[in-house]
Amino acid sequence: MRKVYLDNAATTFVSSEVMAEMLPCFNTIYGNANSLHSYGREASAIVDRARDRIAHAIHAKKSNEIYFTSGGTEADNWAIKGIAHAYASKGKHIITSSIEHHAVLDACKQLEKEGYEVTYLPVDKHGLVNVADVLHAIKKTTTLISIMAVNNEVGTIQNLKAIAKTAHDYGIIFHTDAVQAIGAVKIDVQDMEIDAMSMSAHKIYGPKGVGALYLRNGVQIENLIAGGSQERAKRGGTINVPAVAGFGKAVEIAVRDLSINQQKLRAIREYFIGKIEEKIPYIQVNGHPHQKVPSILNVSFEMAEGESILMLLDLEGIAVSTASACTSNVLEPSHVLRAMSIPDEIAQGAIRFSFGKNTSKSDIDYVVEVLAKVVAKLRSISPLTKAGRR
Amino acid sequence: MRKVYLDNAATTFVSSEVMAEMLPCFNTIYGNANSLHSYGREASAIVDRARDRIAHAIHAKKSNEIYFTSGGTEADNWAIKGIAHAYASKGKHIITSSIEHHAVLDACKQLEKEGYEVTYLPVDKHGLVNVADVLHAIKKTTTLISIMAVNNEVGTIQNLKAIAKTAHDYGIIFHTDAVQAIGAVKIDVQDMEIDAMSMSAHKIYGPKGVGALYLRNGVQIENLIAGGSQERAKRGGTINVPAVAGFGKAVEIAVRDLSINQQKLRAIREYFIGKIEEKIPYIQVNGHPHQKVPSILNVSFEMAEGESILMLLDLEGIAVSTASACTSNVLEPSHVLRAMSIPDEIAQGAIRFSFGKNTSKSDIDYVVEVLAKVVAKLRSISPLTKAGRR
Repeated sequence: MRKVYLDNAATTFVSSEVMAEMLPCFNTIYGNANSLHSYGREASAIVDRARDRIAHAIHAKKSNEIYFTSGGTEADNWAIKGIAHAYASKGKHIITSSIEHHAVLDACKQLEKEGYEVTYLPVDKHGLVNVADVLHAIKKTTTLISIMAVNNEVGTIQNLKAIAKTAHDYGIIFHTDAVQAIGAVKIDVQDMEIDAMSMSAHKIYGPKGVGALYLRNGVQIENLIAGGSQERAKRGGTINVPAVAGFGKAVEIAVRDLSINQQKLRAIREYFIGKIEEKIPYIQVNGHPHQKVPSILNVSFEMAEGESILMLLDLEGIAVSTASACTSNVLEPSHVLRAMSIPDEIAQGAIRFSFGKNTSKSDIDYVVEVLAKVVAKLRSISPLTKAGRR
Repeated sequence: MRKVYLDNAATTFVSSEVMAEMLPCFNTIYGNANSLHSYGREASAIVDRARDRIAHAIHAKKSNEIYFTSGGTEADNWAIKGIAHAYASKGKHIITSSIEHHAVLDACKQLEKEGYEVTYLPVDKHGLVNVADVLHAIKKTTTLISIMAVNNEVGTIQNLKAIAKTAHDYGIIFHTDAVQAIGAVKIDVQDMEIDAMSMSAHKIYGPKGVGALYLRNGVQIENLIAGGSQERAKRGGTINVPAVAGFGKAVEIAVRDLSINQQKLRAIREYFIGKIEEKIPYIQVNGHPHQKVPSILNVSFEMAEGESILMLLDLEGIAVSTASACTSNVLEPSHVLRAMSIPDEIAQGAIRFSFGKNTSKSDIDYVVEVLAKVVAKLRSISPLTKAGRR
């Protein structure tokens, strides 16, 4: 059976260039990067190079502002809780948005249990946070503002720089979850005035199980994972050398190939939109009309249920998702689409298609062909269709 | 130059059997284990198999008592802080030992800052916690006792079952850091009455960046890393499928080959002890005389400085460590040897040799030959020697 993977926002395969970087670290340069002997120093040199590559890619001032973590979720948890705790004596109010990844939202909920106050900003129908709303939400007790760079479900790109500037006008720290942004938009932590930023490898052809927190020197943070002197004593645990090596390479490639990839992905997306608009009636594209990444396309198929579309596509070898993979077992409409004021019956018909660097027009032709049949079939048995709404 | 790696307690290479298990997960079965489509289900099946293997190896009642983490340090942090927080309404007193890994000690220190009370039990000169001391330390407010299974610096095996029983007599939860114990001693969480146990892959020929927390069903824990529905909503973050697959295999092999490996390692250790006792005067073996794992041998070379021995051995291609790799950049005598009441001048001459499954007698011959020269050289310039103490 033909297989087409359009779930690259959930995770990607590891590219051959990245694998080549990782492989020697499993059984040749296998030392503990904290060991003082040659095995350790060799491993440590690999970690240093990866740190340099990432720092360079995001325009960090210094490499020691990059702290490796086990992934984006750990980085988000660490940033939100660690910064909130470090500045608790200054105040206990945090501002975030209602469309953040659950890693941020759930970390905020934990803080609420501890007595912190959290403002969840609304978004407009395109998934955009209004900078004026950020300004109005600021209190004397606000210590941290966390707004994601690119939404993982609809691809909307936030006005980060303006939000960061607003935060800094009031001496507030600005964090962003950039897991979906690296390799998708240009990130310059200096120019964009980002104080803390979460990153992940496995969305950009790097390995799972590794990510990083960029933390501007001077920003205080409490440890999430204590123990050991690793990562300047800020994150305990033996450094995952192969994964870190792969991550460094993946970021380097993602930034190097950014514009060519985006051009290619934009062409694929437009081709896809053209095809489905031609073949399938009653659809709605969710997300910002233009301020969005080309790799993610969220489409609602009215009078069809997203989960059912996913299952029927899967039977034909096509992989897509309804919302994010992280909440795929939760039978609730996406919190992102809800926050965008998309009615539940439309939100429930949403599918996220996320394209990758191997996606071809021929893949798209196949997907649209199957999709047209699947949607028509589901609509033919839908109570909504029977009710004669269309 | 000949290379001999005697730092297997810091980390091991990844074995070929483990690599074979991991490799397909990087670019063939690369789905997100939480995705609902076939790529996701394939990944999820691999995770399930690894979970089953580990549950079986440690005699857990159910596979769902295994929660994957990014390593032993995260598992320790999660267990200590997560259990302490979950039972805070019952009491805020924790008992641990003074020779724990820094992942446990530093997590306890964080709790102390939050207002918890922590008792750090002493150990005897062999590094053993006295069960009576545990009993005497118990208060009405004690909710958690955490004692490591095997010490990482000297290899002493604790009387876990007796300590666990004591904890349970008072309705207290028992956690153990078993990072150095898996594959070194038989672990049966049922028989040993362990409620929570931290594990790591990279000490047993598995990959870095993955570990697990065994958590007996019914034991409450707060999330350390929130977000997403992964790991029964107890640990957010995309599951590191390749590493988890490798970890499962590594544990399976470690338990399968336990007795043969231990037999081999015991022979190597005895051969090593015989040789150094023959060639090098004024040495002291640290740790329990017999209640210890055969893979770790901690030896103090009087009138020589451990760090200097390490450096000179490294010049000859030999990798050893002074204390643990996690604190290798800290210029202080080991907290473990101090707790064992070993005088600082003896502790400072300590070297940890940790043997692996590839260590040969010929390796030992080479190491002892170099070691004798190195120690003699250092002693010839030592002020302690000049002072005529020997």
